[in-house]
Amino acid sequence: MVNSQGYARFRVVAPLAQSVTVSLGLGGRGGTKLTKGADTIWVGTTEGPMDEGFHYYHLTIDGGVFNDPGTLNFYGSTRWESGIEIPAHDADFYALKDVPHGHVQQILFPSPSTNTSRRAFVYTPPGYGKDSNKRYPVLYLQHGWGEDETGWASQGHANLIMDNLIAEAKIKPFIIVMTYGMTNEIKFGGLRNFDIKPFQTVLVDELIPYIDANFATMADQSNRAMAGLSMGGMETKTITINNPDVFSQYGLLSGGTYAPADIKDKSKVKLMFLSCGSKERPDGVKNAAVALKDAGFNAVSYISEGTAHEFQTWRRSLYQLAPMLFKE
Amino acid sequence: MVNSQGYARFRVVAPLAQSVTVSLGLGGRGGTKLTKGADTIWVGTTEGPMDEGFHYYHLTIDGGVFNDPGTLNFYGSTRWESGIEIPAHDADFYALKDVPHGHVQQILFPSPSTNTSRRAFVYTPPGYGKDSNKRYPVLYLQHGWGEDETGWASQGHANLIMDNLIAEAKIKPFIIVMTYGMTNEIKFGGLRNFDIKPFQTVLVDELIPYIDANFATMADQSNRAMAGLSMGGMETKTITINNPDVFSQYGLLSGGTYAPADIKDKSKVKLMFLSCGSKERPDGVKNAAVALKDAGFNAVSYISEGTAHEFQTWRRSLYQLAPMLFKE
Repeated sequence: MVNSQGYARFRVVAPLAQSVTVSLGLGGRGGTKLTKGADTIWVGTTEGPMDEGFHYYHLTIDGGVFNDPGTLNFYGSTRWESGIEIPAHDADFYALKDVPHGHVQQILFPSPSTNTSRRAFVYTPPGYGKDSNKRYPVLYLQHGWGEDETGWASQGHANLIMDNLIAEAKIKPFIIVMTYGMTNEIKFGGLRNFDIKPFQTVLVDELIPYIDANFATMADQSNRAMAGLSMGGMETKTITINNPDVFSQYGLLSGGTYAPADIKDKSKVKLMFLSCGSKERPDGVKNAAVALKDAGFNAVSYISEGTAHEFQTWRRSLYQLAPMLFKE
Repeated sequence: MVNSQGYARFRVVAPLAQSVTVSLGLGGRGGTKLTKGADTIWVGTTEGPMDEGFHYYHLTIDGGVFNDPGTLNFYGSTRWESGIEIPAHDADFYALKDVPHGHVQQILFPSPSTNTSRRAFVYTPPGYGKDSNKRYPVLYLQHGWGEDETGWASQGHANLIMDNLIAEAKIKPFIIVMTYGMTNEIKFGGLRNFDIKPFQTVLVDELIPYIDANFATMADQSNRAMAGLSMGGMETKTITINNPDVFSQYGLLSGGTYAPADIKDKSKVKLMFLSCGSKERPDGVKNAAVALKDAGFNAVSYISEGTAHEFQTWRRSLYQLAPMLFKE
């Protein structure tokens, strides 16, 4: 339960337990200890209001880590975690509304480099497939560290953000493709050993050709964008720099910045979108965009007010980014 | 962990807990009590081998119900439950293989009768959409009590069963549509108060027209089938009887039987498929099929050997049913 000030209250049935803690809390340190009531039900409230939007959490019961049986699970921190939604003042842009809805499809594409069929999710706009002559641009959109290809269309609500933007005619409809980006199984703390090659091969040599063969795409550089959040931004930066003829529009969402020197041929880049939450390092993002603009790039920065390194920042970033993509 | 005889062994970290029980066990009564080792880790093994295939379960820790943090969750018993897979001797037919894969798409379709957008999943065969003139028959496939529209393509592996059958040219490719069937929110024990009307309206008046408008379907009775497992079979029976001009092929998977007197116009029924596990009531299913055949129906029974009212029975049933559908 969340009250109007954003305090979260938890209730867990574990009559014989000796300690129940919720990993959520101010500052993220230690979390919130629940106390057992006379009815043997454990309850507790965060010591202050939580940021608006989605937060992962889990319970620690008698020293073991479990999910809250009262909530849905979302893949984060390399495991299925409980999730809580603190109602946001701007929740309308990702609300489920009575508008035409696009579809989100699970695909299994062949990946010779990893010797398996890999999963991706593909958002197609409302009406996709009705006119067999219509083709769409494509955004490749990556999750963050510890998350997976389910994140953007589940806790991210990317499909509803798109449906609502399309219903208001604020964007040119496009396809979004989301796949798993931790192809080389990095462990916590191992990001500095991250090797982009396995994922770059999957994305550029295997997934993109499959998408272009199986969906009604506009299969050229000017109609292909890549963006990612957090570690997915890091991947986006490296892969877009390495593949200037594959993508023309780039988005880093709490995922670092580009410098003008990163880009060899300025004429191939149509858009650079940099964002983060105001509780992250907004100056770094703003300054990078200014430097890119000064160097002649079409660079934009966006700061999500009052949010940190969490999904509300990234939902808002997608909402800001989408209307800038595939402008002509 | 599962050993070669089908005994399941569990390992749970909960150092300070006083009791940890797994809901799985022979006969389903009381489950399996874990014991705490010197290393404070709780372990235990089922007292005997489990049936092949998929089983839902949960943990009871100090009197509270939680999921096993070491497994994925699956929607069953009206909650997300832990799931365990006891390797089956015939697991090959639903294995992920290097064959062309169909897609499973999440759709949100308008439902005026329930005043919301409702979710369904749609399996489209490999190559769907490549030839804009090609159209497909459709099977509407329902989950059981306490499950939801995710079940058939998750624990059911309906998509992989189809991919493999299509790769071996054993079936005519068709679309499968799966939506939520507990529209009137029945509670445990309330099945006798089940009212088919709310779900029938969603399925027949809202979902089918949406599917026929948005997918390349053959939109006539002879190319439309309905099947369901358990409660979904009960729904299938009532809805097919009520709508003889909508569906021509019927499947009840551990979901009851038809009697010849149920059907007013025999000429409208092309197939009746009845199945269950050998640990259910196979004689009822076999006898019903014989009576239907004697009355001139194209009725088939199938008994899944060594399985009960669980998903291995229903995976095998779909595998048996699919080649019989949409024969000409």
